[in-house]
Amino acid sequence: MSRLEEKTLKTEKLFSGSVISLQIEDVELPNGKTSKREIIKHPGAVAVLALTDDNKIVMVEQYRKALEKTIVEIPAGKLEKGEDPLECAKRELEEETGYGCAEMEWLISFYTSPGFADEIVHLYIAKELKTVENAASMDEDEFVNLMEVTLEEAIELVRNQKIYDAKTAYAVQYLQLQGALKK
Amino acid sequence: MSRLEEKTLKTEKLFSGSVISLQIEDVELPNGKTSKREIIKHPGAVAVLALTDDNKIVMVEQYRKALEKTIVEIPAGKLEKGEDPLECAKRELEEETGYGCAEMEWLISFYTSPGFADEIVHLYIAKELKTVENAASMDEDEFVNLMEVTLEEAIELVRNQKIYDAKTAYAVQYLQLQGALKK
Repeated sequence: MSRLEEKTLKTEKLFSGSVISLQIEDVELPNGKTSKREIIKHPGAVAVLALTDDNKIVMVEQYRKALEKTIVEIPAGKLEKGEDPLECAKRELEEETGYGCAEMEWLISFYTSPGFADEIVHLYIAKELKTVENAASMDEDEFVNLMEVTLEEAIELVRNQKIYDAKTAYAVQYLQLQGALKK
Repeated sequence: MSRLEEKTLKTEKLFSGSVISLQIEDVELPNGKTSKREIIKHPGAVAVLALTDDNKIVMVEQYRKALEKTIVEIPAGKLEKGEDPLECAKRELEEETGYGCAEMEWLISFYTSPGFADEIVHLYIAKELKTVENAASMDEDEFVNLMEVTLEEAIELVRNQKIYDAKTAYAVQYLQLQGALKK
């Protein structure tokens, strides 16, 4: 197997925003030549596959400016500085849906765009939901419509490209797999 | 259901690179207030779940500078300007693995990071692989090690967090689901 690592020769920070930052790195390739890498730094995020007692999936409809589109996703949000992913998952679930939960379990963590970004998403499954009185509220620039859909409806939303993002497609497929394994 | 759209008031282009570009948008929120969105534009990408005749999954081990890590992924790459995703999938498969295929079928397309990027990944499944003589070669700054793993090995790699990216985790789970549905 050949060596694959790239050595950083220089890092130029071009932008630091409230969500992402951008840096250009000059790297030495495995063959000794040099190249440039355009890299987005992101604090990481969580997503929650939340199931109601009658086995519906809690979804949020949200406008995504990057896509210029309204899409349907499972509740998700980015980590605050130093925040534990499990705590973040509970917070985002409450803020976006008004639900707390008695059970929250980690399923998988994955990088979303390893070609240019270090964003990692930690996916959790939440059960035994209950409405929180005086639930924490969302960021003031966040607006969502809440939906509760059956697995069949979620599969149909994927087919119709209304569910359109990786974490949600993974979560819906996860439930399909659990159902198929039970049979 | 409430209105969710955000109206663009101003777009400031901060960076345009060879892979991504960055722009800051001033937006009007549904409640009339304003906010800023940090947005990455990306040309889109393809990924290929390629299966050998003995049902192994073709993977590439690749160093990802954004992560400062070597991870295992299914073959993937970004769209050239105006390139058809199916053609791109065939090209990337050949460049990264040396394989052509008699059958290539679209499975799903998803946005990887809708919170800040417009990157979409078109996922294909390829079967009836055969080695291409004088295969097209990779970008000159790309280095990969080829692997062929069973589904069981792939699941283990996911568990050990060696497979670590959304498209690959989705593809492995897709095969698990197909297997479970057959039983």
